[in-house]
Amino acid sequence: MPSTDETSSGDHGTAGPVKQLAFVVYPGLTPLDIIGPLQVLSAVPRIDPSFEVVVAGEALDVLPTDAVVKLAPSHTFDDVPDPFGIVVPGGEGPILDAAGNRRLLDYVRASAETAEFVMSVCTGAIILAAAGLLRGRNATTHWAYADLVEGLGATYVRQRWVEEGKILTTAGVSAGIDGALHIASRLVGVDMARVIQLGIEYDPEPPFGPIDWAPDTLDALRPLWRGTWEEEVAKRPYLDGRPARS
Amino acid sequence: MPSTDETSSGDHGTAGPVKQLAFVVYPGLTPLDIIGPLQVLSAVPRIDPSFEVVVAGEALDVLPTDAVVKLAPSHTFDDVPDPFGIVVPGGEGPILDAAGNRRLLDYVRASAETAEFVMSVCTGAIILAAAGLLRGRNATTHWAYADLVEGLGATYVRQRWVEEGKILTTAGVSAGIDGALHIASRLVGVDMARVIQLGIEYDPEPPFGPIDWAPDTLDALRPLWRGTWEEEVAKRPYLDGRPARS
Repeated sequence: MPSTDETSSGDHGTAGPVKQLAFVVYPGLTPLDIIGPLQVLSAVPRIDPSFEVVVAGEALDVLPTDAVVKLAPSHTFDDVPDPFGIVVPGGEGPILDAAGNRRLLDYVRASAETAEFVMSVCTGAIILAAAGLLRGRNATTHWAYADLVEGLGATYVRQRWVEEGKILTTAGVSAGIDGALHIASRLVGVDMARVIQLGIEYDPEPPFGPIDWAPDTLDALRPLWRGTWEEEVAKRPYLDGRPARS
Repeated sequence: MPSTDETSSGDHGTAGPVKQLAFVVYPGLTPLDIIGPLQVLSAVPRIDPSFEVVVAGEALDVLPTDAVVKLAPSHTFDDVPDPFGIVVPGGEGPILDAAGNRRLLDYVRASAETAEFVMSVCTGAIILAAAGLLRGRNATTHWAYADLVEGLGATYVRQRWVEEGKILTTAGVSAGIDGALHIASRLVGVDMARVIQLGIEYDPEPPFGPIDWAPDTLDALRPLWRGTWEEEVAKRPYLDGRPARS
């Protein structure tokens, strides 16, 4: 079991052949946004040991999430300067703060330059957009946050995931599982990605069936999650489409 | 955001009206097993503040999982003596060790006596079975571990979840999301559970379609996860159907 691989050197960029898959963390994220794809992609190094999965934060401190559980990074951003791929999870209010965190944005932007893939989950797309990576692109995000991604220059498309070049944005929270299975198929092939799907027994049966996407329903429920675009931008000016520099 | 509710007293049993939903943790668990249902049920206290979500372990130490991420409990077992419901996640090798952990089994068994529901995810069913809770019952678990649950007295049924009285067993890893949405509908009603589903945008599109459950495929792949029943029981005698007393 690769449970506690704390001794990995993270030296892909300078010395070794290790291809690091870096999950970017920050305080207040939605844990399923990260753990869904992390569970999927954690199987990749078992299939191809040239990959390594890391959880990268500004520091190694245990971080609060938007649920009661706390998560501990395995590496700092500095430890993982040249990831093969990055996954950026989202959240609710705290994601909007993270979109103004210069250190985080700089890491995402720099990683994206050389990474083979950049994946966001849910409102992680807001971080990608704030880092300038979605301007003029189609993208998806959590349905309740579409206008914020659009305000940063992207065009929202309501799909489970949207792939444009090296950038894969996925829809809200649970969609990171689907997107990560797609990434896994790129890394180790479809046949092995199917084995990963079998491993996590991803054969969903949502007990209430598919979601009802009626616009009236969404409009009525959106205020449970957030304020209007104007309210959010008043609190966080970096969400208005200017390059984020907190 | 109820992110870091470390001050909750866990006094449901003695003084307060708080109904605690306790996620049981132990070293080496599969993080998606816990985080899927945790994300779902973390919405319940927002809807009905008489509920509280806690993550309960033997101690408050940060725990390794079977992926690189580590999780921190919010409470100890002693802090949560009388949970309203418990959720027991699973794992791979370490779950088989956890099934011999007397302190864990005693907590699960004692909680089950008074809890309104007991839910397992994946091989968490092996812990329920080792605690004597599944004897003579239908149950589900991760497909690759069905015989181990049967060896402890249950009848395996390949369903997304199986509800028998207060006990809800769910299939492998990702099935905890489906099962928790069902539990949520019991706690706050179907309409609000649908809102939770919308919140986590659980409208799955597995990129390779449904799983192929052909028995030959499963038989060929099972050794990727574990040894035979005889091999596992030789290493861990408490899996052979006797009441577990490590």
